[in-house]
Amino acid sequence: MAKIGMIGAGSWGTALTWLLTNNGHQVTVWSALADEITMLQEKHEQTSKLPGVILDDSVVFTTDLKAAVEGMDLLVLAVPSPFTRSTAHQLKDVAAQGQIIVNVAKGVEENTLMTLSQIIEEEVPQAEVAVLSGPSHAEEVGKGIPTTIVVGSKKKEIAEKIQGIFMNPVFRVYTSPDVLGIELGAALKNVVALAAGVADGLGYGDNTKAALITRGITEIARLGTAMGGRRETFFGLSGIGDLIVTCASMHSRNRRAGILIGKGYTMEEAMNEVKMVVEGVYSAKAALGLAHKYETSMPIIEQVNLVLFGGKPAKEAVADLMLRDKKVEISDTEWE
Amino acid sequence: MAKIGMIGAGSWGTALTWLLTNNGHQVTVWSALADEITMLQEKHEQTSKLPGVILDDSVVFTTDLKAAVEGMDLLVLAVPSPFTRSTAHQLKDVAAQGQIIVNVAKGVEENTLMTLSQIIEEEVPQAEVAVLSGPSHAEEVGKGIPTTIVVGSKKKEIAEKIQGIFMNPVFRVYTSPDVLGIELGAALKNVVALAAGVADGLGYGDNTKAALITRGITEIARLGTAMGGRRETFFGLSGIGDLIVTCASMHSRNRRAGILIGKGYTMEEAMNEVKMVVEGVYSAKAALGLAHKYETSMPIIEQVNLVLFGGKPAKEAVADLMLRDKKVEISDTEWE
Repeated sequence: MAKIGMIGAGSWGTALTWLLTNNGHQVTVWSALADEITMLQEKHEQTSKLPGVILDDSVVFTTDLKAAVEGMDLLVLAVPSPFTRSTAHQLKDVAAQGQIIVNVAKGVEENTLMTLSQIIEEEVPQAEVAVLSGPSHAEEVGKGIPTTIVVGSKKKEIAEKIQGIFMNPVFRVYTSPDVLGIELGAALKNVVALAAGVADGLGYGDNTKAALITRGITEIARLGTAMGGRRETFFGLSGIGDLIVTCASMHSRNRRAGILIGKGYTMEEAMNEVKMVVEGVYSAKAALGLAHKYETSMPIIEQVNLVLFGGKPAKEAVADLMLRDKKVEISDTEWE
Repeated sequence: MAKIGMIGAGSWGTALTWLLTNNGHQVTVWSALADEITMLQEKHEQTSKLPGVILDDSVVFTTDLKAAVEGMDLLVLAVPSPFTRSTAHQLKDVAAQGQIIVNVAKGVEENTLMTLSQIIEEEVPQAEVAVLSGPSHAEEVGKGIPTTIVVGSKKKEIAEKIQGIFMNPVFRVYTSPDVLGIELGAALKNVVALAAGVADGLGYGDNTKAALITRGITEIARLGTAMGGRRETFFGLSGIGDLIVTCASMHSRNRRAGILIGKGYTMEEAMNEVKMVVEGVYSAKAALGLAHKYETSMPIIEQVNLVLFGGKPAKEAVADLMLRDKKVEISDTEWE
């Protein structure tokens, strides 16, 4: 039995609380929102974000960050990416030396181009920071549907400790040292999901979508390896695996926004219609910034940016992608 | 303008004939089936296998193999994989020295474990054999929907020649020297599509399916690189790209058969219900044969074989996959 502090009480934090409690651990859930904590204390259910998943009576809910951190074997940071820095900043004063923080959100900070684990390491230098990512809709994890995921830590013993805490017969956890690759794939794949949505909105078929997904993750891998990530990671659970789940789902805000843009909506109109944060729109800018910084060719990312921020018609963007120079599929190609 | 012999008049051969004619080439279509040729001559449409795609008046249809081969700049071999060897055997007597044959079917011969290009090279030693593969439903290509594909040849000039013949504003062709990787990925991905169908049939969600797809292609890449293919190829258009299209489509016989098996049908009952050749069932055996020959760990392929041929309940197979030893995600992992 481990003592776990769950920092954040949205859909993913709630699903992971359910999972960890089922695994026999003692979970304390923190949220900055008093209303959310009151609801959870009364109903043991995140009624607005993950209805139907009932949490065990053993779970403790609190708005006191210290109570959710002190003495815990593991902290799970499950706040949305725009709140990662501010929450980590608060953790600095309460986290112990060597305390493990596993981040489960996805994103790249637009102005600094930092990944979330880099932000946490900057804000909470005394912590050991790890990440958990993969194709894992919270709704399905909260129903016990078989799911796989990868935990990344630079230190093997920390990765294996987290693996041991999360893994169970319907939740298979792989370990990896490639923290950067996991985070980049997870964050940037939303841009490709948005592009795939655009193709759907234009009325194109499965061929076009598969092309965008495959060539899109290839671009991300090109950038990610230039930044120091491992190529295999981008073609693993947190990269292509998560991208497949996103592109298959109508729940994905990125995909839905893309479909609307493909149908002729502007980016602003699509964002208004979807009514929630469309992560891929912000990640598109960050991806382009990284592409320039690391001098990497990313034709799909470039076209997505032109459509989102340059008013370029989506159909023209697809046509331009199809008509580029003739290319070999893989880099470093050796012919006979 | 190139003169092209299209050997085979099924859905894919017809779609490619339409595409190549639109590109300005002169195509002669051959089929062993006199009825099929008569229908095509009368209607210029493959009414049973690709209805709605009307071929140009310039297309010639024949049952005379010699007429479809002699003097052609390129032969496209588009017969289903069970007929590849017998058709190639007939080509031996009519193909010229150095004539290019690009194979567009997918499969591994069960008893010899040979790929289709290896079979063609054995049967028509005087030919230059290339392959064309990727996420490309014939129905979509026949409507001009944007599609990407890869052409593989050991010789760069041949790959580029074929690229030049096929490529147009809605059909983007990449080149690659990795013929073996392209063929293995294309053939073996059907086993994974079948497994993904089983997960659907069991009522599991997108998380499970994404896990099977991601870990499945990782297995195929492990085998394929042991055989001499390039790892990137399996994560390219002919591997993961084609797998994504297959798993998204209800047209896929492999997926449909898998769904039925997940619902409790035996393999034979599922094959009867689908009423057509389920390529993944044969490829599953071939994949297992190759895994043993190259001493490669392929847990998903093994479980698919146990379900198909060993009467193992699908649910148990999924449970066994989830409960294997704890693993790292990527090979050759180096920790700090």
